[in-house]
Amino acid sequence: MNFERKNIRAMAGYTPGEQPESSDVIKLNTNENPFPPGPAVKKALAAINTDSLRRYPQPTALDLRQALGKLHDIDKDNIVVTNGGDELLRLAINTFVDPGETIAVAEPTYTLYEVLAQAQGCKLKRFKLKEDWSLPDNFASELNAAKARICLLPNPHAPSGTLLTSDTLAALANAFKGVLLIDEAYVDFVDPELGYDCLTLTKQYNNILILRTFSKGYSLAGLRIAYGVGANSLISPMQSKTKDSYNTDFIAQKLALAAVEDQNYAQSSWDFVRDQRLMLSTELNKLGFYCHKSQSNFILVKVPLHKNAEKLYQALKQQGILVRYFKHAGLEDNLRISIGNSDENQRLLSALRNLFADN
Amino acid sequence: MNFERKNIRAMAGYTPGEQPESSDVIKLNTNENPFPPGPAVKKALAAINTDSLRRYPQPTALDLRQALGKLHDIDKDNIVVTNGGDELLRLAINTFVDPGETIAVAEPTYTLYEVLAQAQGCKLKRFKLKEDWSLPDNFASELNAAKARICLLPNPHAPSGTLLTSDTLAALANAFKGVLLIDEAYVDFVDPELGYDCLTLTKQYNNILILRTFSKGYSLAGLRIAYGVGANSLISPMQSKTKDSYNTDFIAQKLALAAVEDQNYAQSSWDFVRDQRLMLSTELNKLGFYCHKSQSNFILVKVPLHKNAEKLYQALKQQGILVRYFKHAGLEDNLRISIGNSDENQRLLSALRNLFADN
Repeated sequence: MNFERKNIRAMAGYTPGEQPESSDVIKLNTNENPFPPGPAVKKALAAINTDSLRRYPQPTALDLRQALGKLHDIDKDNIVVTNGGDELLRLAINTFVDPGETIAVAEPTYTLYEVLAQAQGCKLKRFKLKEDWSLPDNFASELNAAKARICLLPNPHAPSGTLLTSDTLAALANAFKGVLLIDEAYVDFVDPELGYDCLTLTKQYNNILILRTFSKGYSLAGLRIAYGVGANSLISPMQSKTKDSYNTDFIAQKLALAAVEDQNYAQSSWDFVRDQRLMLSTELNKLGFYCHKSQSNFILVKVPLHKNAEKLYQALKQQGILVRYFKHAGLEDNLRISIGNSDENQRLLSALRNLFADN
Repeated sequence: MNFERKNIRAMAGYTPGEQPESSDVIKLNTNENPFPPGPAVKKALAAINTDSLRRYPQPTALDLRQALGKLHDIDKDNIVVTNGGDELLRLAINTFVDPGETIAVAEPTYTLYEVLAQAQGCKLKRFKLKEDWSLPDNFASELNAAKARICLLPNPHAPSGTLLTSDTLAALANAFKGVLLIDEAYVDFVDPELGYDCLTLTKQYNNILILRTFSKGYSLAGLRIAYGVGANSLISPMQSKTKDSYNTDFIAQKLALAAVEDQNYAQSSWDFVRDQRLMLSTELNKLGFYCHKSQSNFILVKVPLHKNAEKLYQALKQQGILVRYFKHAGLEDNLRISIGNSDENQRLLSALRNLFADN
């Protein structure tokens, strides 16, 4: 007897990036921050009294929402704190899209979106990004014609790392009749000079829902803390109806709060990533890679002509260096490389130089 | 513009029990363990290096599942670790019940079940427990006639604390054509002499799914760790398809593991609760309360004749003692009182004695 719903039976599930136990491995495959969490987080952890764990945590992470509200100049009631970005994505679908209705994505994109659509029994309408990773022509009209209830867009884009401007997204939200979820998992690594800011747009457009996470920018992937920002009509039903009653735990809330309040530390890690991104792109270019213009903490690189991306991925893995290889159409010639610390980036470059010297 | 799905718009959401910030309050309203977590948990917390938080946690909490498997003599692949019991309940519904299909409960019961059914857009079929809290006659046939896809039963029962035997549940699973979810959130407080054991039944019945949690028995409500046990055909789709990819965090996994491995500490807290449960029932009886026979860490008590349960709840609250009052039909004359530590229980008793002396 199989008790699974039909749509669940038919789906395959998401495959998380490889997480080797060995600490010898150079992990440039799952886009973690190259730095550990800062001293403020360490201090907050040391201050935790296990006696507090006996009781339930704040159900909506009130203290953390207040700190985030202050940071972004957003009312705390326009923020929902979630158990990682995954939860916010799932909640948005659970709350706003009925089974059988349509979810839209622009491909290639984060492969989890499709899995979440399948789990909710939704149709997935796939649009194709242009060659330069910009949105398809007449995208809003196409979304409306497809009756998309929600459109999931990572920005900076994954896996290319490229950035759509706030103006582009404002125009899209204005014309689109559904919810525009902007997945800003990597936004902390965007060059501040670009003036990118979609958080402010949530005050003008009641259909923009923004995802932010502590996993990348704040080096806290292990803690599972993220948040959504949007109009009250979007946030409130997730806050009070569809999220699990106590969705984030006491320690995670406390440590995330400490991380938010130490902006200097976080921002210096973002500066470092931007510098290394430039260095790595320059050096990879010299080796014949084509580097897509990234505003993220990873670079998508097209391998040099006559090189095979999958074989290169395997060769690096044999040397204890993990990068990400995607089998998807249109990405077969590429590798996605997370920005590591100086040592890791240099070891990657010398491994590549050696591999290329051998052939 | 309201983007909510119809079923979400129509629902009200779950109201968590009151969680006052003040530490002066005696909290006997949300069934936490009266003891803090033990020294093993403290030690595990002190051993956490924040550097580890930079990376993602084990996606399926492998180490914890192995320890739980050893504890229960169950294969680790028959266990899914979840972000609190709430997540397991939601996953079971998401995985096994299509919107429009029927979820069955026997009332009165845990009020969250109804909220979860509404969030999935399911019908809720409510059966009525008998006066002595036992299952309705011909329950399995009634469930099958109602085409229930899943039946959610807390055991020990909430809010009465009474226990159905393993034999009763085995017979029910045998005759019921859907999934029988036995919510054992409070099972650790059952008298061992009763020989209650439904975990073993999961090896015989492929439709039994058991919920266990660290929130009560292991004093870790703040951490959000629970788990499900069942046949591979039930566990596997939740593990690999419907749960969020990284649903529990690094620290919570480590601390829960430490708690599991210190069975002596946990078991001594369960013994204490059993002793205090007997003491409290005896003393409350003397005050004219009728105490339903509890195998849990709370007692449902019917207030004495000519007393008003809601007013009693308010009077206790004014003295800084929180108990739980339910407005639901059939429970209006009752209060649910969590077993506290010796001091808390004595202060409750003397507050009641004083209140009764005044009137």
